[in-house]
Amino acid sequence: MKPYMLSLTEATQAIKKGTLTPREYTESLLERINTTEPAIHAWVTIETEKLLEAADRATETKPMNRLHGVPIGVKDIYSTAGTRTTMGSPIYRDNIPDTDAAMVQKIKEKGAIVLGKTETTEFALHDPAPTTNPWNTHHTPGGSSSGSAAAVATGMCPVAFGSQTGGSVVRPASYCGIVGVKPTYDLLSREGVYPLAWSLDHIGYMTRTVEDAHHMLAALTDSDKQWSLPEKPPRIGVLRSYFKENAQEEVWDGYEKTIAKLWGEGAEIIEASLPESFKLVPDVHRVIMAVEVAAVHEDQIRTKQDDYGDFIRGFIMSGLLVPATAYLRAQRLRGTIIEDMKKLIDQYDCVICPSTTDTAPEGLAWTGSPAFNAPWSLTGFPSITIPSGLAPNGLPLGLQLVGTPLSEWSLLKIAGWCFDKIGFDTRPRDPYTP
Amino acid sequence: MKPYMLSLTEATQAIKKGTLTPREYTESLLERINTTEPAIHAWVTIETEKLLEAADRATETKPMNRLHGVPIGVKDIYSTAGTRTTMGSPIYRDNIPDTDAAMVQKIKEKGAIVLGKTETTEFALHDPAPTTNPWNTHHTPGGSSSGSAAAVATGMCPVAFGSQTGGSVVRPASYCGIVGVKPTYDLLSREGVYPLAWSLDHIGYMTRTVEDAHHMLAALTDSDKQWSLPEKPPRIGVLRSYFKENAQEEVWDGYEKTIAKLWGEGAEIIEASLPESFKLVPDVHRVIMAVEVAAVHEDQIRTKQDDYGDFIRGFIMSGLLVPATAYLRAQRLRGTIIEDMKKLIDQYDCVICPSTTDTAPEGLAWTGSPAFNAPWSLTGFPSITIPSGLAPNGLPLGLQLVGTPLSEWSLLKIAGWCFDKIGFDTRPRDPYTP
Repeated sequence: MKPYMLSLTEATQAIKKGTLTPREYTESLLERINTTEPAIHAWVTIETEKLLEAADRATETKPMNRLHGVPIGVKDIYSTAGTRTTMGSPIYRDNIPDTDAAMVQKIKEKGAIVLGKTETTEFALHDPAPTTNPWNTHHTPGGSSSGSAAAVATGMCPVAFGSQTGGSVVRPASYCGIVGVKPTYDLLSREGVYPLAWSLDHIGYMTRTVEDAHHMLAALTDSDKQWSLPEKPPRIGVLRSYFKENAQEEVWDGYEKTIAKLWGEGAEIIEASLPESFKLVPDVHRVIMAVEVAAVHEDQIRTKQDDYGDFIRGFIMSGLLVPATAYLRAQRLRGTIIEDMKKLIDQYDCVICPSTTDTAPEGLAWTGSPAFNAPWSLTGFPSITIPSGLAPNGLPLGLQLVGTPLSEWSLLKIAGWCFDKIGFDTRPRDPYTP
Repeated sequence: MKPYMLSLTEATQAIKKGTLTPREYTESLLERINTTEPAIHAWVTIETEKLLEAADRATETKPMNRLHGVPIGVKDIYSTAGTRTTMGSPIYRDNIPDTDAAMVQKIKEKGAIVLGKTETTEFALHDPAPTTNPWNTHHTPGGSSSGSAAAVATGMCPVAFGSQTGGSVVRPASYCGIVGVKPTYDLLSREGVYPLAWSLDHIGYMTRTVEDAHHMLAALTDSDKQWSLPEKPPRIGVLRSYFKENAQEEVWDGYEKTIAKLWGEGAEIIEASLPESFKLVPDVHRVIMAVEVAAVHEDQIRTKQDDYGDFIRGFIMSGLLVPATAYLRAQRLRGTIIEDMKKLIDQYDCVICPSTTDTAPEGLAWTGSPAFNAPWSLTGFPSITIPSGLAPNGLPLGLQLVGTPLSEWSLLKIAGWCFDKIGFDTRPRDPYTP
């Protein structure tokens, strides 16, 4: 088996044992990129020479850390010292930061190598990246972490950083048939990541297995937790209202089949009724996000309006019109939603819902709706997507698991249990163009 | 000596020893109120019967807690279960809450008795209360905690709760020649206190000595810390720029004399230069406060406009016009100011400045400028005022000591040292009407 096929956990074990060197692993990933990138367009920047030098240094060093010698994809809104960081915007086309983002520092500290910078929608909002979906290159991979999701799905890297303000980690991971993790708000430092909307922005990442997701979280949080599955089947709260009304029919059918499957495997399945306040989620999320995005770009857009994409320009303009008291009112309602949702989810090991409203839309212009992810960005609750099957159109479906703040470790276990029972094949996919 | 003359510390010791009963103490304070209240107007509500019942219960109980049997004044924006709480507004004229504010619960837990509710400006902003200044009843006692300051200064109670959003604890305490403490933001719970501007609102209180202020803070924070003076004279950073430009000449002269006195007593006196960002304080404070006040009153003022005073009505209207991005910009600048000021103050044991721009203004219409207090409400840093002398017009001057977040215990020690060296007589004053 070629090294690029290995999961993160397998690769780090092989490197630790000495059966795989960081140099060999890196070369295998670069070879994979050579084959698949022309169809996928996942990368903004790969500095091959620097990368191989780093791989050589790692090869010469004894593997001491969890991510030793592992090349990782980094979304192009994360600052990387000495390496171009564009934010997906022409304004930052030639921007070379002096320092690494906190999370980039962290993975380097753990022995990892920055493979390259992955494509992002403009400033991580909706104006699309050129990346395609490996399952069907005529479809979007989702956004805003488009390159990271597509790169992990095709085996160009075992793990990649994304970020989520609405649904920018979970949605692309789901559209691309892989695992996506958005931990609790503020668990992972956003320092050095270009803000979209500060009170909603989350660090997140994609892997191909849940065990890998656990491995990565342990590395990022300096934890020595070991991977294990839960001792008994989980007690799951199933969300239906709101989600059913907003889901495509084939997404809903797939969701119900997944629930039946998990029930058949012994999970306790209980209907969880959303509180009244949940209805406010879309409006509250939109007001807060529009204002905070506008605050970030207010000065810059005055002088560089032509360098902004249509979507983000309109979004900023709408944010500039919101009175401050409306923003505070939205933040207050957010507090109510968080309280109500915490009470609900506390009754179960976790709750579940579909990861997306639809399968990956056709074309690259629209990266899809964050409607099923925004509630968890607004509340800051941890959420994980695992692939749960294919829709009749051949595109992946995702199951989203959500827990209360700081429950990510137990949430990962439950996700691992579901992932095993569902048995979706997440090995690297070759790009498919019909 | 009549019991009302006792400081808080003296009274609690006497009660503990059994040489004073809560009933005797309460009766002495009520007698004092009978004498002085007609000239001072410090109280909105005193329920004598309930109060004496509580005093009797305390008299029958063994003194176990720090505030056992001590009647305390409570600003009329603090909810008191079963007792009218007006917020200084006709809208709440007949408002009787079901529950006690967290701080009221806390003092009861420590054995204290609510003496009564003290006058506040309307909703703790600038529309004045009827309270007068004991040093000259033709002058304002300052606001918004007008009644609390005047009550403590005249010996109607040994300690009273206030609250501060601009300068509403430190300013009236200074104008009335007593000690005022505004601890670090969020150190004391604001639950059950009617909000003025949530991110600026602080719980605070007044006493007649610094030792009493220490005693009260220990009670409110469940601490068993014992009072002591610092082992050596403090190292004090002196603030001059900004304050000098905005101070009345006699305030400034008094301030310089106090500095010379402290220096003469052995304090290390160092010029502390304010950072550039400090210039932004008044505007940043105003924007944040206007928006947050407007958010609280937005709904209520639509239907009850005529029940609002002129000042607060205008202030709310101005807040409703602020765009959300301006509010966020102000909050960001606030972060810069906090960081810069922390760096500055970290170089000393504390910094000092005058407590007010002027002595208590003549008349009751204007409660004075919070300009010298607002910086510490904005940063959330603890500040303490101690009386530092009399201006040529016979009115008290105050010295304000400011520390970094959570430094209140050491700040109290330094304030105690300065208080001793200055030697201002803070025994209860009889109201003076020229």
